[in-house]
Amino acid sequence: MNHDPATPEKAAGGRLRRQRPADTGEWATSLTRIAQNEVEIRGYPVDELMGRLTYSEAVYLLLRGELPSPAIGKLFTAVLLSSLDHGVTPPSTLVARQVAGSGSSLSSAVAAGVLAFGSYHGGDIEAVMRCLQEGISLHHGGRSYEEAARLLLERHCSAEPTPPGFGHRIHTRDPRAARLMQLAHELELDGEYCRLLRVVERVLNSQPERAQRPLPLNIDGAIAAVCGDLGFGPEIGNGLFIISRVPGLLAHAVEEKLTQPPMRKIDRDEAYYNGPARRRLPESRK
Amino acid sequence: MNHDPATPEKAAGGRLRRQRPADTGEWATSLTRIAQNEVEIRGYPVDELMGRLTYSEAVYLLLRGELPSPAIGKLFTAVLLSSLDHGVTPPSTLVARQVAGSGSSLSSAVAAGVLAFGSYHGGDIEAVMRCLQEGISLHHGGRSYEEAARLLLERHCSAEPTPPGFGHRIHTRDPRAARLMQLAHELELDGEYCRLLRVVERVLNSQPERAQRPLPLNIDGAIAAVCGDLGFGPEIGNGLFIISRVPGLLAHAVEEKLTQPPMRKIDRDEAYYNGPARRRLPESRK
Amino acid sequence: MNHDPATPEKAAGGRLRRQRPADTGEWATSLTRIAQNEVEIRGYPVDELMGRLTYSEAVYLLLRGELPSPAIGKLFTAVLLSSLDHGVTPPSTLVARQVAGSGSSLSSAVAAGVLAFGSYHGGDIEAVMRCLQEGISLHHGGRSYEEAARLLLERHCSAEPTPPGFGHRIHTRDPRAARLMQLAHELELDGEYCRLLRVVERVLNSQPERAQRPLPLNIDGAIAAVCGDLGFGPEIGNGLFIISRVPGLLAHAVEEKLTQPPMRKIDRDEAYYNGPARRRLPESRK
Amino acid sequence: MNHDPATPEKAAGGRLRRQRPADTGEWATSLTRIAQNEVEIRGYPVDELMGRLTYSEAVYLLLRGELPSPAIGKLFTAVLLSSLDHGVTPPSTLVARQVAGSGSSLSSAVAAGVLAFGSYHGGDIEAVMRCLQEGISLHHGGRSYEEAARLLLERHCSAEPTPPGFGHRIHTRDPRAARLMQLAHELELDGEYCRLLRVVERVLNSQPERAQRPLPLNIDGAIAAVCGDLGFGPEIGNGLFIISRVPGLLAHAVEEKLTQPPMRKIDRDEAYYNGPARRRLPESRK
Repeated sequence: MNHDPATPEKAAGGRLRRQRPADTGEWATSLTRIAQNEVEIRGYPVDELMGRLTYSEAVYLLLRGELPSPAIGKLFTAVLLSSLDHGVTPPSTLVARQVAGSGSSLSSAVAAGVLAFGSYHGGDIEAVMRCLQEGISLHHGGRSYEEAARLLLERHCSAEPTPPGFGHRIHTRDPRAARLMQLAHELELDGEYCRLLRVVERVLNSQPERAQRPLPLNIDGAIAAVCGDLGFGPEIGNGLFIISRVPGLLAHAVEEKLTQPPMRKIDRDEAYYNGPARRRLPESRK
Repeated sequence: MNHDPATPEKAAGGRLRRQRPADTGEWATSLTRIAQNEVEIRGYPVDELMGRLTYSEAVYLLLRGELPSPAIGKLFTAVLLSSLDHGVTPPSTLVARQVAGSGSSLSSAVAAGVLAFGSYHGGDIEAVMRCLQEGISLHHGGRSYEEAARLLLERHCSAEPTPPGFGHRIHTRDPRAARLMQLAHELELDGEYCRLLRVVERVLNSQPERAQRPLPLNIDGAIAAVCGDLGFGPEIGNGLFIISRVPGLLAHAVEEKLTQPPMRKIDRDEAYYNGPARRRLPESRK
Repeated sequence: MNHDPATPEKAAGGRLRRQRPADTGEWATSLTRIAQNEVEIRGYPVDELMGRLTYSEAVYLLLRGELPSPAIGKLFTAVLLSSLDHGVTPPSTLVARQVAGSGSSLSSAVAAGVLAFGSYHGGDIEAVMRCLQEGISLHHGGRSYEEAARLLLERHCSAEPTPPGFGHRIHTRDPRAARLMQLAHELELDGEYCRLLRVVERVLNSQPERAQRPLPLNIDGAIAAVCGDLGFGPEIGNGLFIISRVPGLLAHAVEEKLTQPPMRKIDRDEAYYNGPARRRLPESRK
Repeated sequence: MNHDPATPEKAAGGRLRRQRPADTGEWATSLTRIAQNEVEIRGYPVDELMGRLTYSEAVYLLLRGELPSPAIGKLFTAVLLSSLDHGVTPPSTLVARQVAGSGSSLSSAVAAGVLAFGSYHGGDIEAVMRCLQEGISLHHGGRSYEEAARLLLERHCSAEPTPPGFGHRIHTRDPRAARLMQLAHELELDGEYCRLLRVVERVLNSQPERAQRPLPLNIDGAIAAVCGDLGFGPEIGNGLFIISRVPGLLAHAVEEKLTQPPMRKIDRDEAYYNGPARRRLPESRK
C-alpha cells in the first residue's frame, strides 16, 4: 500500500481494464493484478509462489507488499498460529456452532463467528498498538520507558480497570503470549514495542493491589507488540486475529454439523474434550 | 427493562425452563482442550507448535486430527495459497470493500465478504468433491475412468451447461489449477480424485462443441481433487476456500479504508493496479 | 416485480441516471425510484405514504407492487406481528445477544442473528409453500384435497419424520398459528393454501402413531399458507420471517448491552422473565 | 473427530469447566415471556395482539415496554416507513444484491446488507441523539437554544465539516425529513429535541459559507429528534434504521435473484426504474 505507482507497468497494460479514457472515476489498488490467465500478488505470479512460500509468508507479502525475511516469516507464522483456536470457550466459537446447528451454511457460521469479534473479544490488538505508539512517542520525547509506562497506565486504566493487552478470563499466565515474546527475542525481532510492553507489564504488576492477583500479558498484547515491531500499523491489528481464528471457527462449525443434533442448546460448561491426550511433537519437528 | 422482578410470577414458573434434573446435556469436542494456562490443539500444546509448525500445517492438524507429513504439509500450503486473493474482481471482494467504506468494522467487512461465497462463488469445491466421489464409486463398481467421466458429465451437465470445477469468468487456463495439479503429481500425492478429474477434463474438452472454446479446469476443481486425495470430506470443501481467501478480503478492506473516500461508488472496471511490476522470486526462495 | 415497464415514465427521465447510450449494461429495478429530492416506492412518494399507510401496508406495497386492501393489510400485519419475538429461546436470539455482549455493534448483532435463520429455524416457510403448491397442483389435476394431502405426507415425510410446517420445540399448540389461520378465515382471505394445510393437519394427526402426541401446525406453516393465498411466491417466504423477527433480535441485543456484563456465558435455561405480568389490551384497542 | 473418548483424560478433568455449585448464573429479561403454548410480549399474549395492533405499535411495545398512544403509534409508524427503501443507490442495497447474486441465501444477503450500516450510512441517528442530548443539557443549564446550537456546531463540526444529521449525497431537501418533522408537529409530539434541531438547522445554514449550498436536515437527523422526543435512548438509535430498512434489503435481494443473472457486475449508474409511474394515493387512504 506504500508502493509508487509503477508507471511503465501501468502504461504496458497493468491496468485491469481501461475503457473510458475521459472518466475520472479511476481508482488504484496495489494488492493483486489480474489479467487473463495471470494472478500476481504484489508482482509475484501466484502459481510461482505455490510450493515455494509458506501460507503465512504469502499473507505477509499480501498485507505488507514485500517478502518477509526467513526470521520474520517464522515469527509471523507464530503470530497466526498463536490464536488458531481456543476450544469451545469464546463467544465467537459458540456463535459459529449455534449458527451451524440451525442448518445455515459454513459461510454463514464463519461470518457470524467473525461478527463476535468485538471490543471485548479479539478487539484489543489495535488498542494496544495505539497505546504503545503513544508510549514510544513519549519515550522519543525524552521520557524513560518506565515513565512512559506509568503515564500510559494512568491514561488507559482510568475508564477500565484492566489495561488493554492484559488479563484473561481463563489463564493466569497466557502460554501463547509468553512463547510469542520469547520467539521475537530469540529471532532478534523485538524492538521498542516489545521493550515497552515488558516495562508496562512490570510496572503494572508492581502495583500493591496486584501483589495477590497479577495481571498477565495476554495474547492480544503480545501480538500487538510483536507486530508493531514488525511494522504493522494499528488499523490492521484486529485483522490479524480474524485471519488467525477463522480456521478455528470453521473447524467448530464442521464438528457441530457432523456430530451434534440441530438446534440443540449449546452449553459450554457441558462440553468435554475427547480428543487425543497430551502429546509431544516428534523429534523431527523440533 | 425497568420493571420490578415480578416475584409471584417468578415463583409461579416465570422461569423460562429449568428441567435438567438428570443432566444428560454433556457433549464432546475433539478439537482443542482448554484448561487454565493450557491450550492444546489435538493434544499438542499450542505454545510448543509455535515456531515449529507452519500455519498451514497447524490448520491441517486442527481440521484432520493428525500432523501432516512434510509432503502433505507442502501441498496443503499450496492449496491455501492458491486462492489467497484474486484482486478486485470477485463479488466477495467488492462487498468487503463496500462495507469497509461505509465506516463499518474490519470484522463486519470480512464477514460480509464471506457471505458472498455462495453457490456461484467459492461454492463449487463441495460439489466437485461429491461429483468425484460418485465417479470413484462407479469406477470401483467396474467402470473405466473414462466411462465414469462420461456418466458424470451426463448427470451433472444437464441442469447447468458447465460442470462444477470447470470454466472461469476471466481465465481460459487457470494458472493456479494447473500448478496445484502439477504439485500434487510431483509430491506423489495425486490419487483417484486427481486421476478422475483429469479424465473428466479430457472427455469434456473432446466434445465437438468445445473444440473452439475449451472449458479449463478451475481452481475450485483442482482443490476438490487434491483435497479429496488428501482425505478431506466434501462437507469441509467450501470451508477451505473461506480460510484461504479471508486474508484477501481483509487486505482489500484495509486498503479501502486507508486509500479511498467513504461511501464511494466502487466500479471494478475503473480499478487499475499500481503495485510493483511483475517480479521473480529470489533464487534463495526456489 | 410484475409491472410493465412504464414507457412514458421512462422516456420522461424516470431512469435513475442515463449517461451511456450505447452501453448494454443497463438493468431494471421496479421497486423504488430515486431522483433528487424524490423517493417513490412503487410510484408513491414516500413522504405521501408517511402518516397514511401502516408500516406493514408499505412493506406489502414494496414487496408486491400494489397497495393492499384494508383486509389484506390487516392480515399481513398479523403475519409480521406473529413472529416479532420469541423470548430468549431461539438460536438466533442467543447469537444476537452473544455478539452484542462481545462489544460489537448493533448491526453486527442483528446480522449474526439473521444468519442463524437456517433450514431448521425460520427456514420452513419456503418449504411449506412449495409443498402446498405441489399439493394444489395435484388437486387441480383431479385429486381430492385429502388424496393430495396423503400424497404430500408420503413424499415429504420419508426423509424427515416431521413434515415442514408442523411441530414445535416448546408448543404443543402454537397460539400464533391458530390465531393467524382464524384471522384469515374471518377476513375471508383463506383459499386453497389454507384449505389444503388444514386437510394435511387433519390427515397427519389421524395417523395412529400421532394419537398420543399430535403434531401441531406451527407458525411457519400458517404463514406459508396464509401468504400463499395472498399471492406471495415461495422464494420470498423465508424473507417474511426475517422482516418479522429483526426487531426482536434488536431488542435482545440492546437489552443485553444495557443490562448484562460483557462476555458472559448466556445460558437460556438460567433466564427468567421479569417484565410485567400477563395483562389484557384496553377496551379501546379491541 | 474420530478419536476414542480418552477416558482417563475425562476423569482427570477433561471437562472444560464445571463450577456452578451455588449457581448464581440467573439472569433477567423483560421482553417476552415464553411458556408452553404461551408467547407474551411485555405481558400481552401475542395472539391477542394479532389483528388488534399495527406492526409498528407492536415494535414500539417490544422496544419500550408500553403500548403507544394512537398519536405516538402513528408517528412511530412514519419513522419506520420513512427509511423503508432508497432504491439501488445505498451501499447496503448494492451489497445485499451482490451477495444474493452469488447464490447465497436471503438470510446471507440481508445480513451482509445490514453490515454495511456503518458510521457513514445509517449510523448517524445515535450520534445526533447524543449531540442533541448535550445541547438540551446546555439549555437546561441556562443557555438559549441558539447559544446551545452554536456551541454544538463548534464542538461537532471541527473534525468533520458536516454535522451529523445534515446533508445527503443525492437530496438537497430530504422529503422524508421534512415530512417527519411536520408530522411530529401536527401530532403535537415535537419537544425539546425537535426544537433544538430546528435551531441547529437555522444557525448552520445562516453561516455565510452555506449561503450558496445550504445543508439540509436529513432523515437520520429527523428520526433522531423525533425519537428523542418520544423517549428513545441513543443506544437504540441506529437500530431504528436497521428495522426500517431490512424489508428494503430483502426486496432488492429477491428482485436480484428473480430478474438478474448471477455474478453480474452491479453498476448502480446503469440501473433504470421500470416500475409504475408516479401515482397518488386513492382518496380513501387520505
